[in-house]
Amino acid sequence: MIRERHLFGPGPSNPYPEATRALAQPLLGHLDPEFLRIMDETCEMLRTVWGTDNARTLPLSATGSAGMEAAFVNTVHPGDVVVVAVNGLFGQRMTDVAARCGAEVVAVEHEWGQPVDVDRVLSAHDSPAIIAAVHAETSTGVRSDIAALGAGKGDALLIADAVTSIGGIELRADDWGVDVGYAGTQKCLGVAPGLAPFTIGDRAFERRVQKPRSWYLDLGMLGGYVGEAAGKGQRTYHHTAPTAMVASLHAGLTRILEEGLESVWARHQAAGDALQAGLQEMGLELFAAEGSRLPELTTVKVPEGVDSAAVRRELLERHGIEIGAGAGAYASSVWRIGLMGRNARPDAVLLVLAALKEVLGRG
Amino acid sequence: MIRERHLFGPGPSNPYPEATRALAQPLLGHLDPEFLRIMDETCEMLRTVWGTDNARTLPLSATGSAGMEAAFVNTVHPGDVVVVAVNGLFGQRMTDVAARCGAEVVAVEHEWGQPVDVDRVLSAHDSPAIIAAVHAETSTGVRSDIAALGAGKGDALLIADAVTSIGGIELRADDWGVDVGYAGTQKCLGVAPGLAPFTIGDRAFERRVQKPRSWYLDLGMLGGYVGEAAGKGQRTYHHTAPTAMVASLHAGLTRILEEGLESVWARHQAAGDALQAGLQEMGLELFAAEGSRLPELTTVKVPEGVDSAAVRRELLERHGIEIGAGAGAYASSVWRIGLMGRNARPDAVLLVLAALKEVLGRG
Repeated sequence: MIRERHLFGPGPSNPYPEATRALAQPLLGHLDPEFLRIMDETCEMLRTVWGTDNARTLPLSATGSAGMEAAFVNTVHPGDVVVVAVNGLFGQRMTDVAARCGAEVVAVEHEWGQPVDVDRVLSAHDSPAIIAAVHAETSTGVRSDIAALGAGKGDALLIADAVTSIGGIELRADDWGVDVGYAGTQKCLGVAPGLAPFTIGDRAFERRVQKPRSWYLDLGMLGGYVGEAAGKGQRTYHHTAPTAMVASLHAGLTRILEEGLESVWARHQAAGDALQAGLQEMGLELFAAEGSRLPELTTVKVPEGVDSAAVRRELLERHGIEIGAGAGAYASSVWRIGLMGRNARPDAVLLVLAALKEVLGRG
Repeated sequence: MIRERHLFGPGPSNPYPEATRALAQPLLGHLDPEFLRIMDETCEMLRTVWGTDNARTLPLSATGSAGMEAAFVNTVHPGDVVVVAVNGLFGQRMTDVAARCGAEVVAVEHEWGQPVDVDRVLSAHDSPAIIAAVHAETSTGVRSDIAALGAGKGDALLIADAVTSIGGIELRADDWGVDVGYAGTQKCLGVAPGLAPFTIGDRAFERRVQKPRSWYLDLGMLGGYVGEAAGKGQRTYHHTAPTAMVASLHAGLTRILEEGLESVWARHQAAGDALQAGLQEMGLELFAAEGSRLPELTTVKVPEGVDSAAVRRELLERHGIEIGAGAGAYASSVWRIGLMGRNARPDAVLLVLAALKEVLGRG
């Protein structure tokens, strides 16, 4: 029996039907001319959702976390000072990943639920090689101001995590001064998990590690398969691309761009606003700081005396609704409700509010 | 328009229909109890196809090449002597990957098309930390004797690449003394590319690098999500698993084990034997050394005066048949014809032989 779920957690979300159908299309080889066309178009559409002209914009063949690793492993030279803004789990993870690459990490810690304090991050070190921050913290539901970091970065490279922002809220990598960005497919892009949309500008690429510790994520080598050499018809084999997943991403991006990227952003904003208003009307308290709340991922405090896990189990068993637990220290005191991609729509808002009311007895 | 292909190259192969259908099933979250059941069953079925009891047997969330990286990045301590048997492109790649992990690499070079010379490999160094070899060289169509390496490895760990052997020919990781093995889904397992079936034994796990350079492929951390801690109901989040791909692998493995693993091996053998006999009847010469030819992947020399790429293009355009070019120095002098997974059957043999006869004018 196939169980259908409403995936209203922090991701994956329910894919767009176009993306699901594309997964089941006849498979193409990774060097087939037809697949290479799909790959090239995918990279071009990724440039649009990233807001970049970077030639090196591509889907890495692994999930968003591998995108984070690719960002650091290709840019951190041993001993480089890397300033990381830590305002949640994924900022924390950046410090671990950067340290494994040999960075001298300067972690700028924030209270969870708060946005990145741009001034503190920019003044944390005189001349960092890299500044890194999360645009949309999946662990807390908070948006931070990447543009302000880009404006003040000086000579440093700026690495931005856009896993939960891409395709859901405004993202303008070039205008904001993002040098390296990584994302995931399974949230606002409305595609199954398995690829990491990635972009790197010329300045970062020129400063890159020539022989990074990772062969799989070596952007210098990947450029022969997807990038400028490939554009000149000189593709070289690096690894077997996950062709079904790329075809699915192609279909999801096509759907988004047909709807219009700004319309899709507006749809996420409207769904998030309605959800957050509805939760507050129920007497629940939001977790993320006001003014920095992500529309696509809402964090809400579990009411005093309520068993967080039991509520999630009830939602799943009664209605096939998945919502997320909190992250880290907030595992049992916060819920995370995502309305991302296909789920960013009014009927999903109604459903999740009605189901929560029922299970909490607040109907 | 959707183009259908006969994927008779070195991979990906056409997936089993069950595996394709599973890709399009409703998506599950990576922490959904239903998905965790699918993941656990997948790991259990992977144990069967690997021929292992290793608790740490799982699908890594990236393609086979990332499996290679995981094998080395988790086992190579800086300065470790790693003896690599190089009899093709993937042995060569192992030397690159191991060196990036800080290994002192001892490469034992072979003529391409020949199997690994076990004696030379075992005597290449007095006390290597690791010995590594490719079971089925995708670049040359050659099978090597992993069991003999295992029998003579002494205290070294044995790393085996089973990307093109798993699910196609006999593979008995435990009996053969394989300490770490990695594979791909897109060849004899008959599933789309995107995951790396991986196994590591206790001896290798105990000697592992405690904080490997890769966060994404850190087996110590992955063990909390899939492995002994998970088995005790204490799953921890590491990264978002590619749930659609795992569901597809589950379906492919189910299909294989229902048919019976040894029957599937026999089916690959019969298809390969028939193909190789047919090619020789056409007057073509096989490339791989006699006695070491893989049934699932046949290498054949391009006849004198024939334009290798033009033939492949004709096959693709006229009949939707993909066969592979040769690898490395043999790019235009060898073809690689794979009959893997679903394609290991008599009608595929007839079709590829008839099409080659037509295009080569040898009908």
